[in-house]
Amino acid sequence: MIEKLTGKIRETGAPVVVGLDPMLSYVPDGVKEKAFKEYGETLEGAAEAIWQFNRQIVDAVYDLIPAVKPQIAMYEQFGIPGLKAFEKTVSYCHEKDLVVIGDIKRGDIGSTSAAYAAGHLGMVEVGSNRFAPFNEDFATVNPYLGSDGVKPFLDVCKEYKKGIFVLVKTSNPSSGEFQDRLTDGRPLYEKVGEMVASWAESCMGETYSYVGAVVGATYPEMGRVLRRIMPKSMILVPGYGAQGGKAEDLAPFFNPDGLGAIVNSSRGIIAAWKQEKYSAFGGDAFADASRAAVKDMIEDLKKAVG
Amino acid sequence: MIEKLTGKIRETGAPVVVGLDPMLSYVPDGVKEKAFKEYGETLEGAAEAIWQFNRQIVDAVYDLIPAVKPQIAMYEQFGIPGLKAFEKTVSYCHEKDLVVIGDIKRGDIGSTSAAYAAGHLGMVEVGSNRFAPFNEDFATVNPYLGSDGVKPFLDVCKEYKKGIFVLVKTSNPSSGEFQDRLTDGRPLYEKVGEMVASWAESCMGETYSYVGAVVGATYPEMGRVLRRIMPKSMILVPGYGAQGGKAEDLAPFFNPDGLGAIVNSSRGIIAAWKQEKYSAFGGDAFADASRAAVKDMIEDLKKAVG
Repeated sequence: MIEKLTGKIRETGAPVVVGLDPMLSYVPDGVKEKAFKEYGETLEGAAEAIWQFNRQIVDAVYDLIPAVKPQIAMYEQFGIPGLKAFEKTVSYCHEKDLVVIGDIKRGDIGSTSAAYAAGHLGMVEVGSNRFAPFNEDFATVNPYLGSDGVKPFLDVCKEYKKGIFVLVKTSNPSSGEFQDRLTDGRPLYEKVGEMVASWAESCMGETYSYVGAVVGATYPEMGRVLRRIMPKSMILVPGYGAQGGKAEDLAPFFNPDGLGAIVNSSRGIIAAWKQEKYSAFGGDAFADASRAAVKDMIEDLKKAVG
Repeated sequence: MIEKLTGKIRETGAPVVVGLDPMLSYVPDGVKEKAFKEYGETLEGAAEAIWQFNRQIVDAVYDLIPAVKPQIAMYEQFGIPGLKAFEKTVSYCHEKDLVVIGDIKRGDIGSTSAAYAAGHLGMVEVGSNRFAPFNEDFATVNPYLGSDGVKPFLDVCKEYKKGIFVLVKTSNPSSGEFQDRLTDGRPLYEKVGEMVASWAESCMGETYSYVGAVVGATYPEMGRVLRRIMPKSMILVPGYGAQGGKAEDLAPFFNPDGLGAIVNSSRGIIAAWKQEKYSAFGGDAFADASRAAVKDMIEDLKKAVG
């Protein structure tokens, strides 16, 4: 799957991932009203609204980008109906040949991480049958529990040619509270980065590893160091755009081959129609606004990747 | 909810939580066969098997214990049907007046953590309606992203009188890789513990806080230090029994009031029928084996709590 991701980045010329993190407030009234008319102002209605919203955005942008990253929390908050919308979104993105990064940030001890890995990236056995319940291509993983929480994901990655992005340095303002703590004179995120590099070595694709890392666009100097520590890992970079990360800050995340990073934008793309800049589209053409925003992002990133 | 938890611990004399982490291999053949006969060897069949297994165990033990802790990964691995079994389990345990600790280990940046908090502990708004999708009483939270990933949970805890247990020092063998790193001469888990103590101060119930911590039974000396650092926090203690933690190691986790800790056992209780010690019960009486194991655990813990 890492080959598919790097291949599609080259093909599209766009190291871009669109974050499918739909809040109901991003969904134009027309889409919401239609969903509520059919299902009521219920969890089912909310789930239908975000699914229809996603579908139209995916239809409008799938040819421009290699990957999407649905944030499962935005679906899980609507309970079972929301998670069905997550499942439908993953499956629809596969139909459009997009690489799907499940932003699930799971992580637990051994057998429990194994269950998450099977449910999201691998298969579960029931009697003599096997099923791939959520079937994402990549998943984000929280490393706080150490390597016996991560290794079950590595096993599944090897078996099914899937991948993970391990949280190393997150984009949020308080990420430094624990991640930046100095230990033996160096910040914790560097130690995590070193572990990622060693996990990455054990799960190599052709040029990049199945094991990538999450490093926020909001911390470019740390990105430079981590790029060096984890040479074989693709870096998933959140925090561009709405969270404050700028294109000129992104250069350190890339390798000399022009690959090595994939930059996420969620709100900046899916809620583009609500921005001043794209307001001419209006709510009815929200998906066209998203397409315009993706094109602008790709242009903008050229400054970083060269 | 923290008052309900401490009240029920006093009432039952049992600082015990039963971990409802059903693996299909724990479910006796009779229960599985019945479920597969109705739903086939499918995700639905697996979900039915673990739900029926849970239901019988809950029926057998609910009067002895204050709380249960379903581990969501064990349900999520079976996709949507599995998550429906999780939902049914939570709701059934509420009918039996048990406190439900959702072992979800979620944690993300601000608005995303807010979505998890709303979906699991609080309510989500859809139009003019509000829903409590998963409706656990407590949830476990991963702190790696720092306080802006935890604060949305605190807001929901205050609004709905729910609670969280923040991962501080987990029970697994490799938990030390990051959690034990020395920073300013002290291990990271102590820093996390200090943050928990300050979050706890901001969310006080009558004697204990809505904000608790997870500290593994396998690390009693660290438990002693953390007990002192977080005096107002209830400590959820995994790792007793099957993972190697012994009753005599548990004393440091308790406060002089005899409260302050609640000890989890999962496999040791729900798969008791598979142990030599309880083998006389056989697969058909698996729930009775669980009841016997809970009683033995309560006796055993008296050594620790005095």
